[in-house]
Amino acid sequence: MKEVLIIGIGAGDPDHLTLQAVKAIAAADVFFVLDKGSGEGPGAHDLTRLRRDVIRAHAREPYRLVEARDPERDRTSGAYTEAVEDWRSRRADVYERLILDDLGDAETGAILVWGDPSLYDSTLAVLEEVLARGSARFGHTVIPGVSSVSALAARHRVSLTRVARPLHITTGRRLARAIAGGTGLPGGAGDVVVMLDAHCAFAEIPGDADIDIYWGAYLGTPDEILISGRVGDVAERIRGTRAEARARKGWIMDTYLLRRAPEAGGRPPDGADRG
Amino acid sequence: MKEVLIIGIGAGDPDHLTLQAVKAIAAADVFFVLDKGSGEGPGAHDLTRLRRDVIRAHAREPYRLVEARDPERDRTSGAYTEAVEDWRSRRADVYERLILDDLGDAETGAILVWGDPSLYDSTLAVLEEVLARGSARFGHTVIPGVSSVSALAARHRVSLTRVARPLHITTGRRLARAIAGGTGLPGGAGDVVVMLDAHCAFAEIPGDADIDIYWGAYLGTPDEILISGRVGDVAERIRGTRAEARARKGWIMDTYLLRRAPEAGGRPPDGADRG
Ligand SMILES: C[S@@+](CC[C@H](N)C(=O)[O-])C[C@H]1O[C@@H](n2cnc3c(N)ncnc32)[C@H](O)[C@@H]1O
Ligand SMILES: C[S@@+](CC[C@H](N)C(=O)[O-])C[C@H]1O[C@@H](n2cnc3c(N)ncnc32)[C@H](O)[C@@H]1O
Repeated sequence: MKEVLIIGIGAGDPDHLTLQAVKAIAAADVFFVLDKGSGEGPGAHDLTRLRRDVIRAHAREPYRLVEARDPERDRTSGAYTEAVEDWRSRRADVYERLILDDLGDAETGAILVWGDPSLYDSTLAVLEEVLARGSARFGHTVIPGVSSVSALAARHRVSLTRVARPLHITTGRRLARAIAGGTGLPGGAGDVVVMLDAHCAFAEIPGDADIDIYWGAYLGTPDEILISGRVGDVAERIRGTRAEARARKGWIMDTYLLRRAPEAGGRPPDGADRG
Repeated sequence: MKEVLIIGIGAGDPDHLTLQAVKAIAAADVFFVLDKGSGEGPGAHDLTRLRRDVIRAHAREPYRLVEARDPERDRTSGAYTEAVEDWRSRRADVYERLILDDLGDAETGAILVWGDPSLYDSTLAVLEEVLARGSARFGHTVIPGVSSVSALAARHRVSLTRVARPLHITTGRRLARAIAGGTGLPGGAGDVVVMLDAHCAFAEIPGDADIDIYWGAYLGTPDEILISGRVGDVAERIRGTRAEARARKGWIMDTYLLRRAPEAGGRPPDGADRG
């Protein structure tokens, strides 16, 4: 039986790798690396290089590294979800081919996933689609990893949750929509982590809102940047820093925690939020 | 300057430890271990033992292990948040004393935290309180870890997030309240992770709800149990399995993902949920 390992490698620091991930990498015969090609900018190459470094450091000889071109996503389409699903299905074509052609019976293949495989990553859904097609047969195992969310909290030395209160993790689009709709932070939560935000949705938060932001870019890498403070006070600085860093490096990955300040005299009374 | 490392050790599997955590453990002169005493049942001892095993495996000799009694929490009080805050403040007394008396100048102390330090763990807030008091002076660094949430998703081989949709992480109490209030899953999210649920709040979900549950107990340990399916179909089985395991081992730690099924013909239209 063929076996595919989906390995979370942490969010930027090679030392985010778990012992379990190190062992899984050492157990693999073949590594599948999807390269985004130059169409997606230099960042894609940096990230592919990081994956290759991790393989070089921990894989056991002899191993094979099979690269394939990652299908490009239609970024012109306004229908984000449909574009992502179409992309997912074309990725399934690629992995199906790799597993059929480049993974021998009784061999173990590995796919290295950024951060934790369970957060905004399509690899698991793509492999489910491959399995559902029925042509390639394989077992699969998932190795959890340190997510960029955990890395963000660690670097700011804050807890993401407050006593007995919820944490909402969402996208830049949804944050922007909630603010535009005047419904406050999304999910009715006082603590919200935002990922996949290409448009600085935090800057839409009214300047007088009693909300703190803990922002981090390139977490775990030598380029890491951290900024925190009251949103109204630091939003412009984050926006400027982000634009400058993005221009200099050609790409950026950033995420942030928004934290509604406790009301005067303590936290909001239990039940004050919809969550 | 004294330095305190708050080290996430993963959620049950010793191989969840990151390379960064291994190095941090090897760099520590002193380990502070809070023992819950027999008042909290045998589980507390199992978890303390797991921490000691991790220290034994990775600490560099000579090192000191300083144990202190973890203050007991008032579990009889109905005011959960206040009881937790009082507990937090008594924990601050303990750590303040340990750092003043048992950590030498220029020494490094380590506190091993279950899972990831940013999720429903009081250690960071406790240390902030110690720092705010001003008597003990120290630097501190946080090492992120694999959370039980990531471990749950990995073992069920599911993504926690669906394309462009949010994830809500909350407590058993809040889930129970949302269901009792008839407002559907908390946070207006179709994907909800529930932690700290001592009362099987999932069993309150109406049996005909189109919601799947992915439940896991003792994740990452040899006792791990996984059950998944439509809530209405498996709730009783989970409840029974949970009670039986808890009785047998004397303690249990469990968590679960609730996932609202996509509407016929696809996911709910974008914007259908409040998040
Ligand atoms: C496609 S998602 C993948 C997330 C990944 N699976 C994880 O667990 O972190 C990519 C988003 O994660 C966040 N991200 C990932 N790595 C990051 C890093 N090193 N620094 C800051 N943000 C990061 C950003 O919000 C980015 O838009
Ligand atoms: C006080 S919180 C600490 C969470 C921890 N910081 C983390 O990142 O997983 C304890 C809760 O985490 C969940 N949990 C922690 N470890 C677990 C495990 N090994 N299996 C199942 N649930 C676990 C349970 O919901 C439990 O009530």
